[in-house]
Amino acid sequence: MRKDGPSLADRGRDPDNVVVIGLGRFGSQIADSLVRLGHEVLGIDEDARLVQEWADRLTHVVQADSTDSDALRQIGVQEFSRAVVGIGTDIEASVMTVLTLAEIGVPEIWAKAVSVKHGKILAAVGAQHVIYPEAAMGDRVAHLITTRMLDFIEFEDGFAIAKTRAPREAVGRSLQDVGLRARYGVTVVGVKRPGDDFVYARPETVVPSDGLLIVAGTTDQVQRFAATT
Amino acid sequence: MRKDGPSLADRGRDPDNVVVIGLGRFGSQIADSLVRLGHEVLGIDEDARLVQEWADRLTHVVQADSTDSDALRQIGVQEFSRAVVGIGTDIEASVMTVLTLAEIGVPEIWAKAVSVKHGKILAAVGAQHVIYPEAAMGDRVAHLITTRMLDFIEFEDGFAIAKTRAPREAVGRSLQDVGLRARYGVTVVGVKRPGDDFVYARPETVVPSDGLLIVAGTTDQVQRFAATT
Amino acid sequence: MRKDGPSLADRGRDPDNVVVIGLGRFGSQIADSLVRLGHEVLGIDEDARLVQEWADRLTHVVQADSTDSDALRQIGVQEFSRAVVGIGTDIEASVMTVLTLAEIGVPEIWAKAVSVKHGKILAAVGAQHVIYPEAAMGDRVAHLITTRMLDFIEFEDGFAIAKTRAPREAVGRSLQDVGLRARYGVTVVGVKRPGDDFVYARPETVVPSDGLLIVAGTTDQVQRFAATT
Amino acid sequence: MRKDGPSLADRGRDPDNVVVIGLGRFGSQIADSLVRLGHEVLGIDEDARLVQEWADRLTHVVQADSTDSDALRQIGVQEFSRAVVGIGTDIEASVMTVLTLAEIGVPEIWAKAVSVKHGKILAAVGAQHVIYPEAAMGDRVAHLITTRMLDFIEFEDGFAIAKTRAPREAVGRSLQDVGLRARYGVTVVGVKRPGDDFVYARPETVVPSDGLLIVAGTTDQVQRFAATT
Amino acid sequence: MRKDGPSLADRGRDPDNVVVIGLGRFGSQIADSLVRLGHEVLGIDEDARLVQEWADRLTHVVQADSTDSDALRQIGVQEFSRAVVGIGTDIEASVMTVLTLAEIGVPEIWAKAVSVKHGKILAAVGAQHVIYPEAAMGDRVAHLITTRMLDFIEFEDGFAIAKTRAPREAVGRSLQDVGLRARYGVTVVGVKRPGDDFVYARPETVVPSDGLLIVAGTTDQVQRFAATT
Amino acid sequence: MRKDGPSLADRGRDPDNVVVIGLGRFGSQIADSLVRLGHEVLGIDEDARLVQEWADRLTHVVQADSTDSDALRQIGVQEFSRAVVGIGTDIEASVMTVLTLAEIGVPEIWAKAVSVKHGKILAAVGAQHVIYPEAAMGDRVAHLITTRMLDFIEFEDGFAIAKTRAPREAVGRSLQDVGLRARYGVTVVGVKRPGDDFVYARPETVVPSDGLLIVAGTTDQVQRFAATT
Amino acid sequence: MRKDGPSLADRGRDPDNVVVIGLGRFGSQIADSLVRLGHEVLGIDEDARLVQEWADRLTHVVQADSTDSDALRQIGVQEFSRAVVGIGTDIEASVMTVLTLAEIGVPEIWAKAVSVKHGKILAAVGAQHVIYPEAAMGDRVAHLITTRMLDFIEFEDGFAIAKTRAPREAVGRSLQDVGLRARYGVTVVGVKRPGDDFVYARPETVVPSDGLLIVAGTTDQVQRFAATT
Amino acid sequence: MRKDGPSLADRGRDPDNVVVIGLGRFGSQIADSLVRLGHEVLGIDEDARLVQEWADRLTHVVQADSTDSDALRQIGVQEFSRAVVGIGTDIEASVMTVLTLAEIGVPEIWAKAVSVKHGKILAAVGAQHVIYPEAAMGDRVAHLITTRMLDFIEFEDGFAIAKTRAPREAVGRSLQDVGLRARYGVTVVGVKRPGDDFVYARPETVVPSDGLLIVAGTTDQVQRFAATT
Repeated sequence: MRKDGPSLADRGRDPDNVVVIGLGRFGSQIADSLVRLGHEVLGIDEDARLVQEWADRLTHVVQADSTDSDALRQIGVQEFSRAVVGIGTDIEASVMTVLTLAEIGVPEIWAKAVSVKHGKILAAVGAQHVIYPEAAMGDRVAHLITTRMLDFIEFEDGFAIAKTRAPREAVGRSLQDVGLRARYGVTVVGVKRPGDDFVYARPETVVPSDGLLIVAGTTDQVQRFAATT
Repeated sequence: MRKDGPSLADRGRDPDNVVVIGLGRFGSQIADSLVRLGHEVLGIDEDARLVQEWADRLTHVVQADSTDSDALRQIGVQEFSRAVVGIGTDIEASVMTVLTLAEIGVPEIWAKAVSVKHGKILAAVGAQHVIYPEAAMGDRVAHLITTRMLDFIEFEDGFAIAKTRAPREAVGRSLQDVGLRARYGVTVVGVKRPGDDFVYARPETVVPSDGLLIVAGTTDQVQRFAATT
Repeated sequence: MRKDGPSLADRGRDPDNVVVIGLGRFGSQIADSLVRLGHEVLGIDEDARLVQEWADRLTHVVQADSTDSDALRQIGVQEFSRAVVGIGTDIEASVMTVLTLAEIGVPEIWAKAVSVKHGKILAAVGAQHVIYPEAAMGDRVAHLITTRMLDFIEFEDGFAIAKTRAPREAVGRSLQDVGLRARYGVTVVGVKRPGDDFVYARPETVVPSDGLLIVAGTTDQVQRFAATT
Repeated sequence: MRKDGPSLADRGRDPDNVVVIGLGRFGSQIADSLVRLGHEVLGIDEDARLVQEWADRLTHVVQADSTDSDALRQIGVQEFSRAVVGIGTDIEASVMTVLTLAEIGVPEIWAKAVSVKHGKILAAVGAQHVIYPEAAMGDRVAHLITTRMLDFIEFEDGFAIAKTRAPREAVGRSLQDVGLRARYGVTVVGVKRPGDDFVYARPETVVPSDGLLIVAGTTDQVQRFAATT
Repeated sequence: MRKDGPSLADRGRDPDNVVVIGLGRFGSQIADSLVRLGHEVLGIDEDARLVQEWADRLTHVVQADSTDSDALRQIGVQEFSRAVVGIGTDIEASVMTVLTLAEIGVPEIWAKAVSVKHGKILAAVGAQHVIYPEAAMGDRVAHLITTRMLDFIEFEDGFAIAKTRAPREAVGRSLQDVGLRARYGVTVVGVKRPGDDFVYARPETVVPSDGLLIVAGTTDQVQRFAATT
Repeated sequence: MRKDGPSLADRGRDPDNVVVIGLGRFGSQIADSLVRLGHEVLGIDEDARLVQEWADRLTHVVQADSTDSDALRQIGVQEFSRAVVGIGTDIEASVMTVLTLAEIGVPEIWAKAVSVKHGKILAAVGAQHVIYPEAAMGDRVAHLITTRMLDFIEFEDGFAIAKTRAPREAVGRSLQDVGLRARYGVTVVGVKRPGDDFVYARPETVVPSDGLLIVAGTTDQVQRFAATT
Repeated sequence: MRKDGPSLADRGRDPDNVVVIGLGRFGSQIADSLVRLGHEVLGIDEDARLVQEWADRLTHVVQADSTDSDALRQIGVQEFSRAVVGIGTDIEASVMTVLTLAEIGVPEIWAKAVSVKHGKILAAVGAQHVIYPEAAMGDRVAHLITTRMLDFIEFEDGFAIAKTRAPREAVGRSLQDVGLRARYGVTVVGVKRPGDDFVYARPETVVPSDGLLIVAGTTDQVQRFAATT
Repeated sequence: MRKDGPSLADRGRDPDNVVVIGLGRFGSQIADSLVRLGHEVLGIDEDARLVQEWADRLTHVVQADSTDSDALRQIGVQEFSRAVVGIGTDIEASVMTVLTLAEIGVPEIWAKAVSVKHGKILAAVGAQHVIYPEAAMGDRVAHLITTRMLDFIEFEDGFAIAKTRAPREAVGRSLQDVGLRARYGVTVVGVKRPGDDFVYARPETVVPSDGLLIVAGTTDQVQRFAATT
């Protein structure tokens, strides 16, 4: 299953290449998306079944114990400038792997955490980026559940973007005419009519019936706007 | 631990109230965010420890077997118009719970899935909304890993928004002057200088050094823009 | 263990051929009976021991993960017009398998359920026929236990058939003479004397001592008749 | 949970009363059907949860170890003339229970077996009636799967009864006219038109379109008849 | 590991040859003792490790599932006139094995039981001889524990033999002189002086100091004699 | 369950009283036999179920951890002059218990071993008597299996006693006349006719048909005698 | 089991008081030694059995989950200036506990590690002192095994102390006379004659036969000296 | 993995060679330290992974069951004069191994114990040296925790040595001048200034600031001295 290690190591420092450790749902999705974005991805997992499953989809897939420095070095992981640790349920393995990556000199480490304490330990042993998929998605879903919003993202700085159904009153009128910014403080960034792609919103764009809007604003403004009917 | 069921049921049909089943990391985050957004939340879990942990933070918390129609009816769950099923690892319990909610007549059911097949089964037995936290976050992280992007969201329709560091060439110049839309096809929606909040971008806004931008565009355009240095 | 897949697939659409997934007691009995009735049967199980045990008795036996669409397609399952899912104790595998069969386009799916909810989920994901062996046999045995009945079947429409010992009063008399339909509302369909086969009942047939009767009628009538001595 | 043992024992010898040991799917279905048929049923299980679940539906439910002669005697089981042992997966417990029932003098014992060897052991230690639900249902389903039959039962003596859709050629004609017995050797016992109950078939009964027939005959005849279109 | 089956079968009906199933402590001791007594022994166990351990010490050792009639027949077990089933802790396997041996026609079956009920089941399915090692040795040890006896055996008919230290009063006197039979009802069968073998006791034999006696009598007499000092 | 410890301790040094630790099949049989022989027995086990089961049959039964010196002292075990350790499958507990008994000063310790090494360790930590029930019974059964012997015991010194059916040639003749000692070297100790008790053999005793003999001799002589027909 | 928390917290900042988390062999030995040295010790463990066992021997013993900040705060752990984490086998619990202690502000944390990586993680999350009992003792024993040394300690700086038997040549001579420092580079610090305590070594001290010496020097010198006979 | 057994055996009686059984943390540290001290070490473990891990670091490493006399003899263990048993968690294996080593004649056996009772059993079956790593280190750490001591060892005879920071009052003064022996009863054996090695203390040695001292004395004296500031 192991494929031409040396060339892997040679290509490791190419900043576009990424090593992904743990090919569960989270890690495999990252690996898959990176390949689709044009990157070379080295996948590592202890489970032979997962290694086999991903062998044809990633650039390289190796079965190895990611808490074993020697094993990682032999594969050439130290030559990579970025690693993602997707291990989540086995906290000990997750922490040991991040520590091992830091020890062999991988400069940028991303790691998934399942709790705030787990995240703190990951940061303490060398992860620059800690991700909480369950908590992040949970928060996002909470915003959608009781409003017209269909998707939502909050940038940490209190600025939010949402995809939402157009309010009834706005249908058939130009954005300029409706005056959403004046009344809700939000800016319409994009507009979509059923069956078409999104287009940039302009003042003269007319809100179609059954149309969708991308709106930006502070989290409060966006939330309030989406709650109107 | 169970609190005044009847009044719960009375308030169930208030569309702002939500029942959250499964108080693990995903469900508890939804419940917590909903309470912060001003909703009343009824939390249900089989695990007495989790019920106790969340007793003071949610409106009501009840220990119950969510695959038991009688148990849910006794709590008054059929009076709610929205339910979230956060159960994930026990696929059988997740599916049985969604089926039970559908049978007792909850009109809108959100459920977390751990795989595409799991998601299909949830939809088949009555879930209107299926959420894949691990896959969704994995995809999002993949976009951040090799670019200047700090956050990213793709609306299903090929339209994306990203928070990204300003490219070097743009610093100190007005957006109009830099002409990002002409060169990359992206629109700058917001601009942030260190220490301040985001503000709406205007043509005359000057890109600060160390500044952050919110840019919108098609996924490809946003991705390409974020890869420049 | 796998045998000439292509020819299997070719013969799949022959409506007499059946794929049986799960070679436990229920599934293997179906497979065995179908072979004895002259059908070609493709058996599938994950357990190598069961595959080996049935290799010589069924037309084809393959070891495969029946929740894996690719695996089923490679075997040619999509070419069959009928599938039976005998998996029972692992509810998740049972449901996933039915879903997979529906996805790859098997038009008629039979599946065993261990509870009413299990049965509902099976139907929701694509099973046209759901069977409850334990409950069906339990009900049948209940009818035999306190009566002269030796076997019993109730057609869902309240019409039942039973094999029963002849009541004492009827022995040595013709059916016409005894007048069972007048007194109990039941019709005697067949009569059997010890050592012989059943024969159709005619009005002039004499009830032999130690004889057995097949009687038809509404469930209540048959039950009441069988309780007489 | 235990209820008035003495009176139980008193009523035990009433031949209509039955003790059912093992309240799983098979045993509980028997117990439930018996109650609906008007019998008094004493249910026994080791599992407190099952005992509680059935406490309100059976005449008496007791939690006890059914391999312990003293325990069964204290409950008064020796006063019953009929016992059903529904224990299936734990073969040792199943056999020990039958032996214990035989030792304390229950005259008629029915027991469920999961394999032919299991059945032989049950008979050797004292069970008069051995039932194989999975095998029996499997065989029955095999007959339905490739024919017009909707239900089927074979009496051990080669005589079978089936519920089947009417063959196209017979629709709109009287039974006499169609001459099924002459051509297939089968007798039509009952006829049902959509929405009505089954009625006894008479020579002059006209086969309705979309109608169902109950036919009797040898297994081969019934099978051959059901395979016609 | 399997050795020349045919010749085994040929020699099976030699009444001196024995098949021993289950090579745990009990079965392996029987097998070992039989070989030392000059018999040919076929050992059978499911555990490869035990099969290897005994491969050089018994005439033949085969790894097989002893509940599988076909497997036993292939080895030629049906040709043996005696079988010992040493399986003890797995009651189901023990009973199934005895049943299988009876079915394939082994005329004499010995089996170890761990409880009275286990013993009854073994007898019901075909074991002529049931042995209870723990209970038998427990009873024997109980007799030694508070007396001068060093070994003890009770023949079921109330007649017992014991090895015991000579009572002080008897030392240096002839058996005739001491008159043990008159006083205790026991007969001295053998006498042993330290360092020598046992010799038959004669009236004129002198009891040596530190000598051992073999005495016979009813259980009560022997017990009473051994309790004297 | 614990009963008046002080009085127990008082009676401990009565050499007739015995403490039995481990009430499994071996230990409980010893305890039971000792009670029937008139001794007071203190039973100890960690398993509450076993303690309850034996509570009415032994003098005292206590639930305790027998590897805990303080626990044993509190019960008064140190006042007993004899202890039997019936623990067998948990070797660690068996050894720890013997060590604990030796430490608190019980002068005579009997212990059951499951292997030769286990036996050596028991002796090393303080057991004076080590018993091997499985091996001892296995050896005994081996002698019975291919001969006329019905029971057999070998005293370690090569002297053996057997209960055996009378050889055909001896039936109807006096022991003197048959001359068994001259021909086989064995002495007949007792003779039994069907339905009677054993009686001491005298030279003039006639061997009854269907009679049983108790014979003594060296192991070889007894074995050879029993193999004649 | 919990005892007067408030007063505990009050006394926490007394630098002589120590909280010991994990009362296994390592932690309980520390706690026990600290109490004997005159300190107040608060013991914490999740295991009720261990809490009960140590309740009478330590100042306070509390059952609590040491990874739960709220639980530790309620007990007053934040008032202690020193904590020892004796948890070893459950690495996740060990790391989480150290992190929790650091978060609630315990200034000095000692923790046991089972491997070098475990030790690094403990240090990364806040342990000032990491102890490796198995490795430390292993190294110490290695020095004793092939020399006259009876005990040995190496201070990290290459300076070692050993307790050793006196070499034969030195017996009966004064230290000055023997000249050990000149020949081996070691200094004799103490001398012990059988039955007496150690005394400081002086130049005129005579080495007793069977005497023991405490010698100091570099590790190499001490090792070489101890290897002489 | 096994290497040239014969030569191993030949070299076994070289008293410098040691066999180490159990390559966990304790055993592997001993083996590793012994190799660094110039000894030949034969490592034995049942775990193939550990055998492979240590194959290049020890003289010989063999995978074997150390409770099997034949296996140890085949490796030549009986030719070694010293063995260390590092097995700890599996008490039965630890005791069996020591017994086996004693039986095959290894004259000097060291063994690790996890409790006082375990240690007693090890001694009873033949271990001359019993080591308690957890307890020994726990005691040592207890002395360090509340004092200026950095390391500590107590020789069983009440004589102790400690590495400690110099007390403030002594800095800059000669040992003679400070008069520690007079005031505390302790002797300074070595002195270390930051960055240098330890040197023997002489009366005229000046205590450096930030310096470390090795002091000897009775345990109480050393403890008291280290508690001063």
